[in-house]
Amino acid sequence: MTAELETGLPSFRQLQKLIQTGGEVELKLVTNDLLVGKVRWQDDLCICLMDHYDQQTIVWKQAIAFLKPKT
Amino acid sequence: MTAELETGLPSFRQLQKLIQTGGEVELKLVTNDLLVGKVRWQDDLCICLMDHYDQQTIVWKQAIAFLKPKT
Amino acid sequence: MTAELETGLPSFRQLQKLIQTGGEVELKLVTNDLLVGKVRWQDDLCICLMDHYDQQTIVWKQAIAFLKPKT
Amino acid sequence: MTAELETGLPSFRQLQKLIQTGGEVELKLVTNDLLVGKVRWQDDLCICLMDHYDQQTIVWKQAIAFLKPKT
Amino acid sequence: MTAELETGLPSFRQLQKLIQTGGEVELKLVTNDLLVGKVRWQDDLCICLMDHYDQQTIVWKQAIAFLKPKT
Amino acid sequence: MTAELETGLPSFRQLQKLIQTGGEVELKLVTNDLLVGKVRWQDDLCICLMDHYDQQTIVWKQAIAFLKPKT
Repeated sequence: MTAELETGLPSFRQLQKLIQTGGEVELKLVTNDLLVGKVRWQDDLCICLMDHYDQQTIVWKQAIAFLKPKT
Repeated sequence: MTAELETGLPSFRQLQKLIQTGGEVELKLVTNDLLVGKVRWQDDLCICLMDHYDQQTIVWKQAIAFLKPKT
Repeated sequence: MTAELETGLPSFRQLQKLIQTGGEVELKLVTNDLLVGKVRWQDDLCICLMDHYDQQTIVWKQAIAFLKPKT
Repeated sequence: MTAELETGLPSFRQLQKLIQTGGEVELKLVTNDLLVGKVRWQDDLCICLMDHYDQQTIVWKQAIAFLKPKT
Repeated sequence: MTAELETGLPSFRQLQKLIQTGGEVELKLVTNDLLVGKVRWQDDLCICLMDHYDQQTIVWKQAIAFLKPKT
Repeated sequence: MTAELETGLPSFRQLQKLIQTGGEVELKLVTNDLLVGKVRWQDDLCICLMDHYDQQTIVWKQAIAFLKPKT
């Protein structure tokens, strides 16, 4: 794990867009947990998700399988 | 995780070919999820898959077990 | 694994805040274990969690799926 | 993930031998999938497996548990 | 994986203390195995655990979820 | 993944000893597979295990949970 930001990658920028537009996403984890919420911030290691009750969950990117817009 | 593109690797180029030809693929994840769609873009960390309903899913490469053409 | 501290990352600083405020958290692991306690210290590889009985558990960050305040 | 080829490692060379001899292998994945086929090419991140129907599957090395000759 | 020792990290030093005090620990793995024993040595990749029958088990750190004193 | 040998680490040397003494080991994988055999060679990424029928299995170290002498 290195501390340099991966801001140049398309996937990083797509997540930044999601943060700006504020749309809800589904986050499927390798634990098979399915989290729903809005992405608040990200860094190289983590994503912060906020649910309907304004509760923030810090999700480790290493545990993410996929992310898609909530339908 | 480093931000340098792995464009020189055969696996990266094979994925680029799939993006260009636009064929459908099956993506098996370590969660045992099976995703089907067309590969739209990739970077070192992620692959973007588009399904029949034009919904885009960002898949973390770390969670991919294997990929094959849909038969 | 490198030994340099990732103190500059938002996720690292958020954890530092949790250490200072001393609030209880839920830690979901990739094993699907759910640990509850207060975060005592962290480094790049591990988090130390203290439960109600003052027992300390060293959790490897590689095994963390997500963390959220206990509700 | 770095893009430098690990061609110097015994495991890499063993796989190269398997590519040349063309023998069938069993590939056990961390998903518990068992794939059977001939290894066509490899790079640092992936192995390409061809089955009886000439279908190619790109397998991420990160998802491989073990490989052995098909008996 | 790099060969440099991570001796400067708190988690590494905590494990060194456990080696010196010789107390028994529980080691939960990502396989959900629970191992019990005394930590004999560690390096960046592995921990060596000795059980009641003086049998040594080499545990890969990559497979550790958490460690706590046996109660 | 880097190609430099980790020959200086205790865990690497312990495996070298096992190769020289030729004793049988049990290898528990993160798939929960349990493999039994003699360690023939290792590099940074893999271990080669030979079973009673002289069949060789290449095991990715990334998939190893623990290793202990067969009892």
